[in-house]
Amino acid sequence: MSLPLCWSSPLPEPDLACIERAKARQDQLTKPRGSLGRLEQLAVELAGLQATDQPSADPVAITVFAADHGVCDEGVSAYPQEVTAQMIANFASGGAAISVLAKQLGASLEVVNLGTVGPVEDLPGIRNEPIAPGTANLALTDAMSSEHLHAALQAGDRAAERAVKSGCKLFIGGEMGIGNTTSATAIACALLNRPPAGLTGPGTGLDPAGVQHKQDIIQRALHRHGSDTSPASILSSLGGFEIAALTGAILGCAARGVPVLVDGFIVSVAALVAVRQQPSARPWLIFSHQSAEPGHRSVLETLNAEPLLHLGMRLGEGSGAAVALPLLRSACALHNAMASFADAGVSQ
Amino acid sequence: MSLPLCWSSPLPEPDLACIERAKARQDQLTKPRGSLGRLEQLAVELAGLQATDQPSADPVAITVFAADHGVCDEGVSAYPQEVTAQMIANFASGGAAISVLAKQLGASLEVVNLGTVGPVEDLPGIRNEPIAPGTANLALTDAMSSEHLHAALQAGDRAAERAVKSGCKLFIGGEMGIGNTTSATAIACALLNRPPAGLTGPGTGLDPAGVQHKQDIIQRALHRHGSDTSPASILSSLGGFEIAALTGAILGCAARGVPVLVDGFIVSVAALVAVRQQPSARPWLIFSHQSAEPGHRSVLETLNAEPLLHLGMRLGEGSGAAVALPLLRSACALHNAMASFADAGVSQ
Repeated sequence: MSLPLCWSSPLPEPDLACIERAKARQDQLTKPRGSLGRLEQLAVELAGLQATDQPSADPVAITVFAADHGVCDEGVSAYPQEVTAQMIANFASGGAAISVLAKQLGASLEVVNLGTVGPVEDLPGIRNEPIAPGTANLALTDAMSSEHLHAALQAGDRAAERAVKSGCKLFIGGEMGIGNTTSATAIACALLNRPPAGLTGPGTGLDPAGVQHKQDIIQRALHRHGSDTSPASILSSLGGFEIAALTGAILGCAARGVPVLVDGFIVSVAALVAVRQQPSARPWLIFSHQSAEPGHRSVLETLNAEPLLHLGMRLGEGSGAAVALPLLRSACALHNAMASFADAGVSQ
Repeated sequence: MSLPLCWSSPLPEPDLACIERAKARQDQLTKPRGSLGRLEQLAVELAGLQATDQPSADPVAITVFAADHGVCDEGVSAYPQEVTAQMIANFASGGAAISVLAKQLGASLEVVNLGTVGPVEDLPGIRNEPIAPGTANLALTDAMSSEHLHAALQAGDRAAERAVKSGCKLFIGGEMGIGNTTSATAIACALLNRPPAGLTGPGTGLDPAGVQHKQDIIQRALHRHGSDTSPASILSSLGGFEIAALTGAILGCAARGVPVLVDGFIVSVAALVAVRQQPSARPWLIFSHQSAEPGHRSVLETLNAEPLLHLGMRLGEGSGAAVALPLLRSACALHNAMASFADAGVSQ
């Protein structure tokens, strides 16, 4: 298996003429200039990315990538590893947070299982594309082979292709994988060249001693990994299948001209890998929320990203992006449907 | 005319049993405890206010109060005063920001005209209840007589009564009135016992010299007003009809057991008046967004309020509250529809 095309193919650029027209329109709408704040910028940004005068955040495709992590052998999570597979079933039956939000928002939801320690039944809405029963223990060895890495990136790219073919105007990627804040924090440390202290957090709910232990495990993994900063080597050494798939999906969406609403810490780390590999992926990313996980702030700063929401969320699954989606929809509705000063006969 | 009943009648309290049950439910849902951050608190808060196990932010009633301000004689706004009446027509025809948002969110929208300098046509969705053709110039004299104040408070209370009778689960108040940041800032200064410097902002778009002039006008009004800190005297001396009506609507909703999603600077000032008059109104208020208008921060701090959104909005009309509404809806959907660990067979 080889790397997907999106890994290195040239990415499209936002449409500058659409951006200029959108800015001009914002200044003609019946409101003081700039008084819609970030909503104005969002509408202008989406107009440029979608190359349209009528930006839209509907329909939206949500894809959740799930996989297990060998590093759970080190006791880095507050939950047992079987929860990954149990949550996949919960996604299918509609009881998980992202299932509830997708239904509420009228967004499609696809769950891609890339490999759990226990078996996952065939369930509606779940695609079983297992690469292996979880990654290897990144504290001891590379989490994945290059074959595994390529398979995960390809799975993400295929998910992007399906989403784009379905007609989505915006893509949200989510993740589920017990242990994956350990992997994501290790990747962030390697990409930012920073030690794990300050970036390591409680994940699903470790106590302070647990966070210290997690930090020690990440330090051991970084020592093993060494100084190689290429995105592909960092992903295979420290990654999870779902994180690599998210990187593939993000690049796959950008390559196909569809903007991505980025969720919290894990997805932002996957986005940082994508941007390190292809800096021209950055304009395709809209950052939804600031996670309570401490490493997120550093990752966002590196990406020069100011997320829309600060609600102390730290659930994953794409839930933070889903919660932020209505802001984009409001921004588009206002941009497309408000009257101009001239139309409404309002003095300017 | 007399003060409405809500001005001094005892207000109901949140239902503590519902709050406890909602907290217990949040801890059983298939997510790490606390991982939905503010959304968990919102659901618990609404459950207590609505005295239910199934909190809801639908249906929602939006009422925009509009009126003109005599202080515009002093040149305190970037827009001419006739814009108030023009915008009322724009609300009716669906071209204003709040019209677009109300339609998008499936919320009802009522506009109450309390008195503009020019006439307002009879238009669908507009209630004409003029008190006077705008307030008097608060730099020179009391903005309203006590008769005018009572009429405005009553108009707000009646709007709350209509909204509650319509079956709304949540109320959003908005405002339109060229010059009303001058009035609201003067009220805030009087209630907080602070000088206008630091609280005075550009409103719809004054330049720095304009802000300085506005500040001088507010200082003159505060000097004239003196040290009386009773909410009624401050409202009649420095208020606007729409601000007093908002205070009446907020107290009227609280008195009837319906929570209020508070918009930006102007509505927060009306809310502060309400809470100074009746401290037990505070639990009924959920604060939606932090306005770009500088006085808003001080008003929110006094109310011990942490708004949900920080998007740099400063439009008014209730637009910031409307943009935040989907956060409450997501919080309710998650609370009501997520599976518990036991139901989903997920290890805890």
